[in-house]
Amino acid sequence: MIIIGEKINGSIPSIAKAIAERDADLIKARAQAQEEASDCFEKVFLDCCASVPEEEEVDTLKWMIDCIQEVSDLPIAVDSPSPRVLAEAYKFCNKPGLINSVSMEGAGEKIDILFPIIAQNPGWDVAALCCDDTGIPKTAEDRLRVFHDIMARAKEYGIAPSRMHIDPLIEMLCTSEDGIAMNKEVITTIREEYPDIHITAAISNISFNLPVRKILNQTFTVLCMEYGLDSAIVDPCNRDMVGTILAAEAMLGLDDYCMEYIGAYRDGLFGPIK
Amino acid sequence: MIIIGEKINGSIPSIAKAIAERDADLIKARAQAQEEASDCFEKVFLDCCASVPEEEEVDTLKWMIDCIQEVSDLPIAVDSPSPRVLAEAYKFCNKPGLINSVSMEGAGEKIDILFPIIAQNPGWDVAALCCDDTGIPKTAEDRLRVFHDIMARAKEYGIAPSRMHIDPLIEMLCTSEDGIAMNKEVITTIREEYPDIHITAAISNISFNLPVRKILNQTFTVLCMEYGLDSAIVDPCNRDMVGTILAAEAMLGLDDYCMEYIGAYRDGLFGPIK
Repeated sequence: MIIIGEKINGSIPSIAKAIAERDADLIKARAQAQEEASDCFEKVFLDCCASVPEEEEVDTLKWMIDCIQEVSDLPIAVDSPSPRVLAEAYKFCNKPGLINSVSMEGAGEKIDILFPIIAQNPGWDVAALCCDDTGIPKTAEDRLRVFHDIMARAKEYGIAPSRMHIDPLIEMLCTSEDGIAMNKEVITTIREEYPDIHITAAISNISFNLPVRKILNQTFTVLCMEYGLDSAIVDPCNRDMVGTILAAEAMLGLDDYCMEYIGAYRDGLFGPIK
Repeated sequence: MIIIGEKINGSIPSIAKAIAERDADLIKARAQAQEEASDCFEKVFLDCCASVPEEEEVDTLKWMIDCIQEVSDLPIAVDSPSPRVLAEAYKFCNKPGLINSVSMEGAGEKIDILFPIIAQNPGWDVAALCCDDTGIPKTAEDRLRVFHDIMARAKEYGIAPSRMHIDPLIEMLCTSEDGIAMNKEVITTIREEYPDIHITAAISNISFNLPVRKILNQTFTVLCMEYGLDSAIVDPCNRDMVGTILAAEAMLGLDDYCMEYIGAYRDGLFGPIK
């Protein structure tokens, strides 16, 4: 699995405070903690999202990215709703990472700004959300239509599917009448059409407004992995989630004789703290 | 989900001791605990297995069944490797339950002894294991062959698929090279062929010899439910397993708006103990 570590995001109150006070130690500590928890995954990006007004965002991201790079060699997922901010901020990274994200919003403007950058920077990947100017589509069919629009544009720019991390957009389970049927259809269809693409999701959205979110998040991750998810936006320091992902990899035939599962346990990455 | 509660089994040391000492209180306590944890499931059987020498087994089961029936109204899964013992012991139950189990072992003798009883006792269900005199088949194809043999015999005896609980037999993950691929093939094929049949499994077998068994058992349960499992041999007092099963039911579209999940949480059946 590819992990997009979610712990450095200005929408988290402690991170917002650290940003406001330019408390570099806290940002660095979050980066280090995620790096230490990351050994058992194929690849880990550290998401970096400022959640500040757009006019302050490039400067803030520069400061955050500098903090992270002082203590971690992991690639960064530069995260902003603004394509203009992303087009500047990715340059602060001293190694290729992930531009997070594009979508079909803004009449395709996000893509027009960011796909040329991806095309010209071969090491970089890009995350793409299945939404457009009508919002988040209500049906699997409409989400797949947006997905196909994005892939058509990627083809125009010569961006290989293996460089794309598609986010089908996860909404809360508690308002659904048929569980995660739509997620299943979207994920299995994308996986079937593009065996090499990455499919990611902000897992914890599923459990919004429900009790014992941890169990729902783990259960959802397992099911999505079965459907074809190979990437997840989660907290790699969440030991139960780490154990669950490794258990699912073993069950899905991605870990012969459970060697990775056993190794990660021996390294103390999940299970009761000793 | 249908739960076959596994806590009253002579292979558990505390139960073996209670049987040896005829400690009725312990058996009753185990029955009550499972009944109290059972409200959120479609149906719960209390498994009752003596694990004593065959010559003592009928008497022991009679004593155990009497203990259980003093405190619980739940149907009993009368559990023995011996078809002759089962043919006697089921009579001690004051309401229909589950005969656990038949297979193609003994050249079909188990079936010849027990299917007539099932046929003549309409309220009773029967569990059937996908093995025969060659042992536990190594391939999905061979397990399905045994399954088809069992179903052919059930048809002869006029036993409807909806009265059968098929156990595809779960082996430990740590010796598998392709994860649970065989379980997936067996379970999905059976579910496709017989929409009304019950498919059950002794979940915890999957995690034998591995660390943090709880995470593996939960992950396995979720995947098997996606494949078509609708019954599980588990401990209904295991709060994390209960939460996981309810979460999976909600995700798989079996719990509109998560009402069952939320209700069971409010009833204190899973989540942190308050």
